[in-house]
Amino acid sequence: MDNELEKISILKLSERGSSSIEDVVAKEFPLTIILNNRELVTLLCSPANLRYLAVGFLFSEGLVKNKAAIKRIIVDDQRGAVRVETEGDEELASNALFKRFITSGCGRGVSFYNAADVQDQVRVESRIRISILEVLALVNEFQHRSQVYRTTGGVHSAALSDTTNIIVFSEDIGRHNAIDKIFGECLLNDITTDDHIIITSGRISSEILLKVARRNVPIIVSKSAPTSLGVRLARDLGLTLVGFVRGKRMNVYTHPGRIATNGK
Amino acid sequence: MDNELEKISILKLSERGSSSIEDVVAKEFPLTIILNNRELVTLLCSPANLRYLAVGFLFSEGLVKNKAAIKRIIVDDQRGAVRVETEGDEELASNALFKRFITSGCGRGVSFYNAADVQDQVRVESRIRISILEVLALVNEFQHRSQVYRTTGGVHSAALSDTTNIIVFSEDIGRHNAIDKIFGECLLNDITTDDHIIITSGRISSEILLKVARRNVPIIVSKSAPTSLGVRLARDLGLTLVGFVRGKRMNVYTHPGRIATNGK
Repeated sequence: MDNELEKISILKLSERGSSSIEDVVAKEFPLTIILNNRELVTLLCSPANLRYLAVGFLFSEGLVKNKAAIKRIIVDDQRGAVRVETEGDEELASNALFKRFITSGCGRGVSFYNAADVQDQVRVESRIRISILEVLALVNEFQHRSQVYRTTGGVHSAALSDTTNIIVFSEDIGRHNAIDKIFGECLLNDITTDDHIIITSGRISSEILLKVARRNVPIIVSKSAPTSLGVRLARDLGLTLVGFVRGKRMNVYTHPGRIATNGK
Repeated sequence: MDNELEKISILKLSERGSSSIEDVVAKEFPLTIILNNRELVTLLCSPANLRYLAVGFLFSEGLVKNKAAIKRIIVDDQRGAVRVETEGDEELASNALFKRFITSGCGRGVSFYNAADVQDQVRVESRIRISILEVLALVNEFQHRSQVYRTTGGVHSAALSDTTNIIVFSEDIGRHNAIDKIFGECLLNDITTDDHIIITSGRISSEILLKVARRNVPIIVSKSAPTSLGVRLARDLGLTLVGFVRGKRMNVYTHPGRIATNGK
């Protein structure tokens, strides 16, 4: 975690006076992703799990289909670059640049998807169910896991859960990056996302929803609000969208059948 | 404001039971910016002040230098597009596409700037001063202005202030968009930003800082945290960065001389 923090001197002010103290802020790091020797993009991110971020990003953007397609990954911490070599180039990268779709919410913002991607996305099918108490327990554990957030107040977090435990956890200054790191780790370590749950600290916009649907995840849970397009995509793609999990309450925006109100 | 909201039916759940209610979420709207007949980008935004957003975006990306450069703006609400025609094209738009720098924090995320832009940015010089009590009063008024946030919990807000009053206010699902809307409005309505203050609900990353420095704004105030690069840029470019304004307290990260602890 130390790598993700930077110490600085700040002045704390209140009506009563001022004091100079040492504080920490979340480190912001420019990471360039180089796909098959072509500079694809530079992300501003937290400098941890760069390998997972690069692979998760490429997967989210449809530039890598599966683990087998990846021949080699070289992380260059010093120069802030991850080089990824894949089987067959198919001019995907260069085409992708002309299908930009910039984001909105709290997060990276570029997405190389367009309307056609949404149409191509198959509906998520899953018979998984989770109880209200399980959702509350997971979100509670999720909040306790976020070390950088508690230290700096300046990052987002995301997690993958099997309804009982948190299996993969990540933090990043960008909410998109945090989710891409989760999926990158899953892809490289053969962790299934089917019948699992994504938990996020951030708002659920259309891009976040599409990213999660692509991994066939049936339930997404957030402490924050969704946007109208996030809700519409969740409805159309068969995902259960749970927002505003706060205290002992939550809002279910779509497909509530997967949330059991009494046991399972 | 109604235009920025969408009514939906949701299920409210707690341990005690469930109830089906009408709720509202923040509308997410894809807006394509067409510069001199070329599709530049599609932003996901709140559907208000699209004209300001388009101009503010073009200005932030260095594609429009001033109001005089704009020949014509046509807003097409139905098709989700704003067409902007400028004096001289200079192939700026197409070049810009190859200088992408993707973001991090909560916000749009693409920025067409690169390291050279930071070097070109001149230091902000301003003798403006503001007292702690003025900062607290402004942030208090700022929070009360945010109608869509209070209704949906799903948007960011930004404001321009002259230290006493809020002069321009905007809300958007993206924190970058909210600030671009402010600057677009200033540019089109000849509102100066020199010696003024930007207030934002969002975290202050390097891109936000650079955007504000470009408008020669000497003070940026946020309820949230900055990132390490945000702090470094503020220090190098001469901006006073105030974060974590909560209750009666705040943190001053850089150039504290503009914050008067007793009167001015």
